[in-house]
Amino acid sequence: MRYAPLTQAIQGETVDAWDIHFKATALKEKDSSVIVLSIGDPDFDTPTPVIDAAVAGLKGGDTHYVEIEGRDNLRAEIANQHQQKCGQPVTKDNVILLAGAQNALFSSALCILQPGDEAIVLQPMYVTYEACIQLTGAKLVPVAMDKHNNFRLDKDALAAAITPKTRAIFFATPNNPSGVMLNKDELSYIADLAISHDLWVVSDEVYSRTVFEGEHVSIAGFDKMAERTITLNSLSKSHAMTGWRAGWAIGPETLIKHLSNLSLCMLYGLPGFVQQAAYVALTDSQALMDSEAMRESYRRRRDTLVACFEKHENLACIPPEASMFLLVDVSQTGLNAQQFAEALFEQERIGVLPATAFGQCASDYIRISYVVDDEQLAQACERIDNFMLQFV
Amino acid sequence: MRYAPLTQAIQGETVDAWDIHFKATALKEKDSSVIVLSIGDPDFDTPTPVIDAAVAGLKGGDTHYVEIEGRDNLRAEIANQHQQKCGQPVTKDNVILLAGAQNALFSSALCILQPGDEAIVLQPMYVTYEACIQLTGAKLVPVAMDKHNNFRLDKDALAAAITPKTRAIFFATPNNPSGVMLNKDELSYIADLAISHDLWVVSDEVYSRTVFEGEHVSIAGFDKMAERTITLNSLSKSHAMTGWRAGWAIGPETLIKHLSNLSLCMLYGLPGFVQQAAYVALTDSQALMDSEAMRESYRRRRDTLVACFEKHENLACIPPEASMFLLVDVSQTGLNAQQFAEALFEQERIGVLPATAFGQCASDYIRISYVVDDEQLAQACERIDNFMLQFV
Repeated sequence: MRYAPLTQAIQGETVDAWDIHFKATALKEKDSSVIVLSIGDPDFDTPTPVIDAAVAGLKGGDTHYVEIEGRDNLRAEIANQHQQKCGQPVTKDNVILLAGAQNALFSSALCILQPGDEAIVLQPMYVTYEACIQLTGAKLVPVAMDKHNNFRLDKDALAAAITPKTRAIFFATPNNPSGVMLNKDELSYIADLAISHDLWVVSDEVYSRTVFEGEHVSIAGFDKMAERTITLNSLSKSHAMTGWRAGWAIGPETLIKHLSNLSLCMLYGLPGFVQQAAYVALTDSQALMDSEAMRESYRRRRDTLVACFEKHENLACIPPEASMFLLVDVSQTGLNAQQFAEALFEQERIGVLPATAFGQCASDYIRISYVVDDEQLAQACERIDNFMLQFV
Repeated sequence: MRYAPLTQAIQGETVDAWDIHFKATALKEKDSSVIVLSIGDPDFDTPTPVIDAAVAGLKGGDTHYVEIEGRDNLRAEIANQHQQKCGQPVTKDNVILLAGAQNALFSSALCILQPGDEAIVLQPMYVTYEACIQLTGAKLVPVAMDKHNNFRLDKDALAAAITPKTRAIFFATPNNPSGVMLNKDELSYIADLAISHDLWVVSDEVYSRTVFEGEHVSIAGFDKMAERTITLNSLSKSHAMTGWRAGWAIGPETLIKHLSNLSLCMLYGLPGFVQQAAYVALTDSQALMDSEAMRESYRRRRDTLVACFEKHENLACIPPEASMFLLVDVSQTGLNAQQFAEALFEQERIGVLPATAFGQCASDYIRISYVVDDEQLAQACERIDNFMLQFV
């Protein structure tokens, strides 16, 4: 049977990179000594008040159709917190709940991109950007962050990538996999380009609550950016709620109406009991304290890993400002990232990802997810020390 | 800012029809005597064992990422039940879980249709088909069911609608809003056309467990149809789980792989606790008994309404074989469907839908959803009797 060309556009080329992750998770079922540092799924439980809210919703019969855009109180709370943080004046009418930031990215791309367009994405980038952009018929134009400057913005490269066909700039801040958080100067540069070339900006901020140093800044709050910015966020990372599929987009009211029309035929809203849980996640003091405690754990783990990698002369680690990931340049070992990751798994039973999947500019790097407890992480560091002996 | 043309394709023309529904639900908050017969949301609670399974999943920490296609045990159970019912040999690899049959319809359309294609939909049709098909760039070609024959298949009209551009035939059996269930002869006719013209068939079977008379037949089980049929189903209607967003598509393995690639960038799987609940819904004897009890309630309500409408000479009701809806021809009253629905709401505080939204062929009809308890339904019948006095 014939399939639509779209099915070609969503076939990732980067599946190989996950082989080690799949091998590691499969082996871990038989061998508990395997340490899986290859996925961005928090090891924490969802905060208890959030679970309790979902349970109360389920037991209270909140299992029927709900408003397509999400409930007013939840949308208003998201709008309120966004405005408090970045200053962009928004109401619930600027917010739509969707099934995770992934669904929000997918939906936003469909509403703003069309065949013939070019969409710039700052690289390294999360692996699903490629499919989300290509399925609209638009062309993805990767702009590599500057790997000689710890993967910070390469302003000249960004400016040079803009053509008359450019329609949007997509980025994640903090970035997965680098953990780099764009600063005011960098965002201001992007904003100026977006305004002068009349571009959309899609800012994926799912790690914005997992920040170790400095202040997270949202480009939506910059002058004249409200009308052209789509801010994506979710509870997946901040509240260890990856499986709940609860995220949102914030943007101009017209965009939200289009996204609502799309959700009507794509999704038909999020479960009411999930929305009750989401509201508690964003407002309950215990839930917020739990979220902060997770962040402090990630900070401690990051410090442990950075200290480990800095000991080894032929590894160069980029200390992340945020997120639950870090990149390590392994090229000085004489192995490429895939070889290094395979050897580390074979010899030391540690699963990490070759960062090639996140863009060519990251091909010398492995991505480490610090989503295991302190004890496992200490073990991982010992094994890495041992592994590195062969390269001395 | 410029939006993609897709945003035009998903702007429904049929929103007016829902005005009365929105008015009725708004007034009901202030006036409990309002009777809302305008939505397809069961008034029942989700069966307790299903709730309990979700609660156990939540409390057990089943809140992390899960397999994109859904869990093996759930997919295998769906495959098993489908095979038992219709004879199509399928395994879990022919099944993908998606966020409701709506999401499965949307995703299937994206994977099989492209600009230039024509997709036939049997009309009356549920309102979101238009957007789902048009957003792919394909043209929706409605084929009216025969209203002079209780909205059964018009074979000649279907055959005549096929052109070299036709790529697929979409239908719902049982149908929303007519409650008509396609029989073996009708499905066989459709299958022959699909095979001889090499067409996809998308069979939306969300009301297949809500059948009052006769046997529900799935076209997927017909000879040579497995390779070209996509069967959509969900728990929304059968188990009063509309808000859970739990549905699936069954089809060729290649299609499932494409749908899985799509889900990776669109949705990223269903919550694990929802999947645990779904498994219980499909296998637990109490949950299945509850589902059957719902069906018996719908049957009783249907009988009540049919008896009510048959009393009135200038109303012609099509007794549905299945579903939770029925159509009533109101044209003999001298009012059109919109006027009739408005007057019924203004005078008797009953919300029904003008069926115009489901296709031009249904424009003489109102759709009644029997999703209220026996007492309210008896009241509704009394009020309808009273309302009809003015037309005598």
